[in-house]
Amino acid sequence: KKNYRIAVLPGDGIGPEIMQEAVKVLQLVGEREGVTFTCEEGRIGGIAIDTDGTPLPEATVKLAKQADAVLLGAVGGPKWDQNPGHLRPETGLLGIRKELGLFANIRPATMHSSLVEASTLKPEVVSGVDLIVVRELTGGIYFGEKKRYDGPNGEVAEDQCIYTEAEVERIIRVGFEIARKRQKRLVSVDKANVLESSRLWRKVAERVAADYPDVELSHQLVDSCAMQLVRAPKQFDVIVTENMFGDILSDQAAMLTGSIGMLASASLAAGSFGLYEPVHGSAPDIAGKGIANPLATILSVAMMLRLSLGMDEAAAAVENAVWSVLEAGHRTGDIAADPSKAIGTVAMGQLVRDEL
Amino acid sequence: KKNYRIAVLPGDGIGPEIMQEAVKVLQLVGEREGVTFTCEEGRIGGIAIDTDGTPLPEATVKLAKQADAVLLGAVGGPKWDQNPGHLRPETGLLGIRKELGLFANIRPATMHSSLVEASTLKPEVVSGVDLIVVRELTGGIYFGEKKRYDGPNGEVAEDQCIYTEAEVERIIRVGFEIARKRQKRLVSVDKANVLESSRLWRKVAERVAADYPDVELSHQLVDSCAMQLVRAPKQFDVIVTENMFGDILSDQAAMLTGSIGMLASASLAAGSFGLYEPVHGSAPDIAGKGIANPLATILSVAMMLRLSLGMDEAAAAVENAVWSVLEAGHRTGDIAADPSKAIGTVAMGQLVRDEL
Ligand SMILES: CC(C)[C@H](C(=O)O)[C@@H](O)C(=O)O
Ligand SMILES: CC(C)[C@H](C(=O)O)[C@@H](O)C(=O)O
Repeated sequence: KKNYRIAVLPGDGIGPEIMQEAVKVLQLVGEREGVTFTCEEGRIGGIAIDTDGTPLPEATVKLAKQADAVLLGAVGGPKWDQNPGHLRPETGLLGIRKELGLFANIRPATMHSSLVEASTLKPEVVSGVDLIVVRELTGGIYFGEKKRYDGPNGEVAEDQCIYTEAEVERIIRVGFEIARKRQKRLVSVDKANVLESSRLWRKVAERVAADYPDVELSHQLVDSCAMQLVRAPKQFDVIVTENMFGDILSDQAAMLTGSIGMLASASLAAGSFGLYEPVHGSAPDIAGKGIANPLATILSVAMMLRLSLGMDEAAAAVENAVWSVLEAGHRTGDIAADPSKAIGTVAMGQLVRDEL
Repeated sequence: KKNYRIAVLPGDGIGPEIMQEAVKVLQLVGEREGVTFTCEEGRIGGIAIDTDGTPLPEATVKLAKQADAVLLGAVGGPKWDQNPGHLRPETGLLGIRKELGLFANIRPATMHSSLVEASTLKPEVVSGVDLIVVRELTGGIYFGEKKRYDGPNGEVAEDQCIYTEAEVERIIRVGFEIARKRQKRLVSVDKANVLESSRLWRKVAERVAADYPDVELSHQLVDSCAMQLVRAPKQFDVIVTENMFGDILSDQAAMLTGSIGMLASASLAAGSFGLYEPVHGSAPDIAGKGIANPLATILSVAMMLRLSLGMDEAAAAVENAVWSVLEAGHRTGDIAADPSKAIGTVAMGQLVRDEL
């Protein structure tokens, strides 16, 4: 009997509640498929700061490295917002990305037909939106050298944005590989009219394109892409971009769907290892109330089954169960047209398992 | 009789056509107000590359420096897209910003009630949107040191994002001053959870806030702001942010209105000097056809009258003339619901002058 080790990092806020439902779904998949998932819990973010004095304890890194894949809830909350940098929850997130070499962040923004009304965009503009943002996650301005010093005009702050050809090439290849399995249209986003790192980015994209003659590559400037996402989001299949632009554009794309509580993401290393998490945050305002939407975390489990464990059918089964529950009209508060009919976290998780 | 010297830089594509209408409006304002506007033309962008071998000839810089204000059409086009950096039209734009010290880019995104349908967002989400993005324009990653060299992992490219306290302070103050004259709500946008330059930015914003107790300051992370602009754009009054984030967010905000052909912008130096230009580009595909929308350039004239020349009433008169023409149902092709009824550039300019 196959056994997979899954590192489970619930994190802060609603993290533990939604993770519980996701893990129950995962265990059910295991029973159905005759596979054992050994889930081992670790701490990250605020809870780790409180318990271990650091947002990313060694033990968590070790646990994750020994696992076949990682499931993450969410990190952060007002309690730690005023902490110095090294004691902030998001430092744990940045740290685990770097430690595990998670260079490829995959962020699908899919408009599910029964949720079209949740979008602030007109139905004809967003219905059918099905795009993926592939974001470079361990380079660029996020991880370049930082400086702070006094100068003649007061304090000076510097961030270095740095990319090597190898870093650009591997993420561009991920973009092409994903596009190849979809509509074969890849938009590489940069700011090549201003940035040196973008000029390298574009050059590498052009070179790698030769290996993917079946995929259509085009380039958009980041400002123009931000406009096009609002104007005509359906034009996009796969977008590949660097870390900072990807942070902005993937959040913008997510919000186009109006249901950020539904969106999953993967952060992949070379090979099949990956970390999976919902796109939404830790929502401290509703933590502990049992009303958070667990679907994005459940859909993250599906992504994990597909991308790290090669269990495509099981992944599709989970996704279909989620769509069925939605089509039957069940909604958590965040996506409910009529809040009085909203169901809670556990009930939603149960419905998905029933459907499975 | 008062005499103002205006440097007029029509640029490329539709630039000359729309500028012609804007200058006619300006001359009419002069007659009405008993003021002389001496308009002197200069070259910038592609036309300057072709004629002078550089996108920003010395003569143009000199002309602009001697003027009271600058009107710019648009630069760029496919003809110059493959040129090396120093021979690209946008290099002229970046150059003039730096040469003239235009550190404050003011980009209003206003949803005019008769154009609500042009937006891809639902009417209830965008009607009444009236926000201004104040973008730092001569610092940050745009003007930091750039490097390109060979390393063990192939080529390496670097961009330095650098801000001094003085640079941050002066743009934050512009944000506060503008907010003070409006709804007194300023959102400062940064990425303080990752970038050192953003941490300096936020610190300075907090310090300067003490001088503006009547203005409510809040902070948003750039990814979150990109979401909020889609989710609930009416929440914003004034947004102040650094160069790169401002590039992205101001374009996104502009597109929310759906009528980018209507939006004007100002780029201000210390004192009253400024450069005024439409937000839209040079639209090479429709250049020379006489169908481009001149209203954004005409509204840029209004901004110039108000911000550089202190002619508030004349500015309001121009703006009101534009709104009246729109309310009477006249449309250029870009904003026409029924393209067969669209009017051309010259006809639109004439209607505005008639209204004046
Ligand atoms: C919390 C923050 C550091 C992080 C990022 O900017 O990468 C988040 O916004 C994300 O997108 O996962
Ligand atoms: C053309 C380009 C260099 C410029 C910029 O990025 O500043 C443009 O996008 C703008 O916003 O004026």
